[in-house]
Amino acid sequence: MAIYTPPLKDMEFILHDVLKIQDSDIPGYSDLDRDFSGAILEEAGKIARDVLLPLNAVGDSEGCKLENGVVRTPSGFQQAFDMMRDGEWTGLGADPEYGGQGMPYLVHTAVSEVFVSANMAFNMYQGLTLGAYEAIHAHASDDLKQKFLPKMVTCEWTGTMNLTEPHCGTDLGLLRSKAEPQDDGSFRITGQKIFISAGEHDLAENIIHLVLAKIPGGPEGVKGISLFIVPKFIVNDDGSLGARNGVSCGNLEEKMGIHGNSTCVMNFDEATGYLVGQEHKGLRAMFTMMNAARLGVGLQGLSQASIAYQNAVEYARDRLQGRAVTGTQNPDGPADPIIVHPDVRRALMDQKAFVEGGRAFLLWGAMLLDDGHLNGNKDSEGVLSLMTPVIKGFLTDKGFDCTVQAQQIFGGHGYIEEQGMSQYVRDARIAMIYEGANGVQALDLVGRKLATDGGKHVLAFFDIVKTFIKENEADAALNDDFLLPLKSASKDMQAAGMYFMQNGMKNPDAALAGSVDFMHLFGHVCLGLMWARMAKASIEALANGTSDPNFHETKLTTGRYYMARLLPETALRLARINTGADPVMNLAAENF
Amino acid sequence: MAIYTPPLKDMEFILHDVLKIQDSDIPGYSDLDRDFSGAILEEAGKIARDVLLPLNAVGDSEGCKLENGVVRTPSGFQQAFDMMRDGEWTGLGADPEYGGQGMPYLVHTAVSEVFVSANMAFNMYQGLTLGAYEAIHAHASDDLKQKFLPKMVTCEWTGTMNLTEPHCGTDLGLLRSKAEPQDDGSFRITGQKIFISAGEHDLAENIIHLVLAKIPGGPEGVKGISLFIVPKFIVNDDGSLGARNGVSCGNLEEKMGIHGNSTCVMNFDEATGYLVGQEHKGLRAMFTMMNAARLGVGLQGLSQASIAYQNAVEYARDRLQGRAVTGTQNPDGPADPIIVHPDVRRALMDQKAFVEGGRAFLLWGAMLLDDGHLNGNKDSEGVLSLMTPVIKGFLTDKGFDCTVQAQQIFGGHGYIEEQGMSQYVRDARIAMIYEGANGVQALDLVGRKLATDGGKHVLAFFDIVKTFIKENEADAALNDDFLLPLKSASKDMQAAGMYFMQNGMKNPDAALAGSVDFMHLFGHVCLGLMWARMAKASIEALANGTSDPNFHETKLTTGRYYMARLLPETALRLARINTGADPVMNLAAENF
Repeated sequence: MAIYTPPLKDMEFILHDVLKIQDSDIPGYSDLDRDFSGAILEEAGKIARDVLLPLNAVGDSEGCKLENGVVRTPSGFQQAFDMMRDGEWTGLGADPEYGGQGMPYLVHTAVSEVFVSANMAFNMYQGLTLGAYEAIHAHASDDLKQKFLPKMVTCEWTGTMNLTEPHCGTDLGLLRSKAEPQDDGSFRITGQKIFISAGEHDLAENIIHLVLAKIPGGPEGVKGISLFIVPKFIVNDDGSLGARNGVSCGNLEEKMGIHGNSTCVMNFDEATGYLVGQEHKGLRAMFTMMNAARLGVGLQGLSQASIAYQNAVEYARDRLQGRAVTGTQNPDGPADPIIVHPDVRRALMDQKAFVEGGRAFLLWGAMLLDDGHLNGNKDSEGVLSLMTPVIKGFLTDKGFDCTVQAQQIFGGHGYIEEQGMSQYVRDARIAMIYEGANGVQALDLVGRKLATDGGKHVLAFFDIVKTFIKENEADAALNDDFLLPLKSASKDMQAAGMYFMQNGMKNPDAALAGSVDFMHLFGHVCLGLMWARMAKASIEALANGTSDPNFHETKLTTGRYYMARLLPETALRLARINTGADPVMNLAAENF
Repeated sequence: MAIYTPPLKDMEFILHDVLKIQDSDIPGYSDLDRDFSGAILEEAGKIARDVLLPLNAVGDSEGCKLENGVVRTPSGFQQAFDMMRDGEWTGLGADPEYGGQGMPYLVHTAVSEVFVSANMAFNMYQGLTLGAYEAIHAHASDDLKQKFLPKMVTCEWTGTMNLTEPHCGTDLGLLRSKAEPQDDGSFRITGQKIFISAGEHDLAENIIHLVLAKIPGGPEGVKGISLFIVPKFIVNDDGSLGARNGVSCGNLEEKMGIHGNSTCVMNFDEATGYLVGQEHKGLRAMFTMMNAARLGVGLQGLSQASIAYQNAVEYARDRLQGRAVTGTQNPDGPADPIIVHPDVRRALMDQKAFVEGGRAFLLWGAMLLDDGHLNGNKDSEGVLSLMTPVIKGFLTDKGFDCTVQAQQIFGGHGYIEEQGMSQYVRDARIAMIYEGANGVQALDLVGRKLATDGGKHVLAFFDIVKTFIKENEADAALNDDFLLPLKSASKDMQAAGMYFMQNGMKNPDAALAGSVDFMHLFGHVCLGLMWARMAKASIEALANGTSDPNFHETKLTTGRYYMARLLPETALRLARINTGADPVMNLAAENF
């Protein structure tokens, strides 16, 4: 039976001691004192542990079933979903004008980590609704917003994102779904979409599909894509539900994981749709949705690593096997717990250092988002846009690796489904793929974001790192264990950027061949920075006579592990980047 | 639909141009000219492609079923198994005295790669039989050998390995299964074993279990373990089958992958067993079985990477998405094939360089095994015993990573089961776990094998590398691209060995904390050596006017990729090793 302890203390530490949100001038943050944020997180933690966690294995083993066009979600999902609605968790970050609670994205992020750790597949139903909400909120007319948003905020109606078609995933310019204008201003949508998460299910009375389609006669390629709202049931002017629209689920995919979420083939057959934003400008509106979704997917990677790690620790403390090489630790038992073995610890430390560093990184990203949205800070927005592919790509690559490591701790017991460790691996795997496969994230990072506004944002990022080092290098303990490794990693990143500048213009392949290496290099520098910031906070807490010295000593020990053993990966990444295009591109396609 | 092209040309190149088996003095190798080995591999390739491959997805989706104590294997397995028997593939490497064909292990290895690539779960039935055959062949009395081996060589009877119990995996000293001596010289075996692959099934008329158990009154711990033959049906003196023995399958495990193989809970209830070898010396006999099994598991890692890679290449050539950043490559199509994109190539090159290097490594290992067994060369045996945990651990870790990379090429299509890529990932995953989890392999390597006979074998390994470099450094092309990187990687490995020597005596944790890093470092040096040897062979072939220059140019390009982009990982591994025990061991168990 899986365990989960919501990491409330760790979150509180990051929010209040590291990010010091209480001192921030971001609107809404002044309300987030320790009592308030602690109370929210504690409540979320209870639901996660008591309601969502027990349904995680149920969702995996039962999966969703398609019967006569109706998709049945696993046992217990409906009750849990009702509970989320009743507790008003679905509208935590939504606009009060549409019934939301208007809390900062930071709060939403912390709460989401807890929910998604306990049950990733379940949480997608409301996660996708939030994405659809955001696109409508940012781009649709007031009429459409009034009509659809209030019910989406409460998740009485859920939302979806319909982008992919059988022949068209990353390259949306190829899409074929058509939108024919009607006299009443609506459109008739026809086409097939695949891999639509939560496309059809029995948890909500209506489903609001956001659909990319082409209006005939528009420009070729991505410049001719428009975004539409296509509800499962037509919504009457009085808000009641009308006729069933021409949209249906043609099939459910059998997939490696997230069985509790329905992955649908959606058929649109002259379905009524409503234009969101301007004609042919659908991609921009979709990106609103995708940017937030990418942070959410990064969070999935982290959250699965977090719960897998917790279960691996539990097992490593309980499972008796062998004796510590330096002398028996458990003389009264037949063997020592396997946590005494150096390689078991190495694997656990890898996970712990990633999870805690990644959590801080994600919450920092959420704070930058709030600083951009709520405070109008363009610099924060710029740094976040640069870091978004890193949050998505790095946290999901590494998060998946951590679930594999956690499963490995269990030996053969990790491979059988009964223990639940296989599910974390299988569920986490999708996060590397959807919302732009991680290779596409790296392309976005190196091919687009790095050079945006003349490289302004990456320079701003380096400035954040440099300033932090400069301001703190007088502290010898911090300097030796944290700032010097961070400085070295940051230099690797600068050298990589320099390589791209000098070679990428002449030959884009020379930069793109190293794009995934750069994404990981950047991710490590971000986590290195977060660990340095956490170390500073813990050193201060210890100096100030904290009531919980053990927490802060543990934080420092874990941080030192990260800096000593994980951060040096930056040198390898740089070495690969510096080999440029030739090793990667020299082989003709027919010779693979 | 999955594709598979048996890599016959690559195997021929490794066997005849790189390992030059035709020039070897190992008994039996003189028969292995190009025509002969080519004919065997071609025939094996046909069976793999036409018979085993189509059953791979069937085995995964149907799985095995336990009904009234009988385990039913998936549709088509029985026919395919009969075909393997009829073609005498099951006894390829077995002793002619018992009906085998007596071919070198090298041939068995090459053929196995082809079979296991096409269907890993299916091949386990005969793979485990071979392991059991070897333990009986090496340790049992002549009577037992005469009674059991002929039918095992033909796989009329299959074999199993019964080690693990619910509370006892790696630490066999904890096992509780009992063996009570009987007046007739047999034993009564009682206990429960878990995770028994092929423990019960309907493919063979009898199943010969090799079971570890303790004879009451024997020494404590691993020194009191004995090995027994426990047949499913008692074998009468005339060779006919008698009564059903007291052994039964209590349950089938639901697991992440290898669904086509039955993973059984086996209950022994006063079952009749026959002692193999001496009382209380069972572990030594078991290790005979495990050493060969570990090579076989390394092969599983490689083989799943190989077929996953082939399918990823196929998809990357077919799937049209986006345009090459350096200019359109497929002007007549709506988009370019994704193989034009640098990051897709990077992932494919990673896989190709690993698979071909790993194949050469494995075949070299098989040749060393033959040189030890058939030629009595103790040095070869020693080097192989050192490399066995590397073959198992490194090839399965990296092999799994490759299946994940191959799946990633497919984007969302890789995540749905229909495409088959998920199965490679799920099947390959077990290879990192069973036959000693990879952390245990690293422990065996660093804690035991490195220091065996005063470090003689690792010095012999370094000597092989040094000699190769020295003999070939006059060749500038080989030197710059291959020998210099190999020299650098080998120095990293020597430095790591030096660190262990200087620190491991005082504090074993200082060595064991870096054990997995060392296993990977070692693995990279091995593959670096194999790539250098392959490059030499290809340079020679090109200089001699080969009829297939494209093959050898491709080999050189792929090798350069390995040396430039993958081999430098040794520096990171060394950096981690040099951090010693503290980062890994400093955290108290309760603070994880």
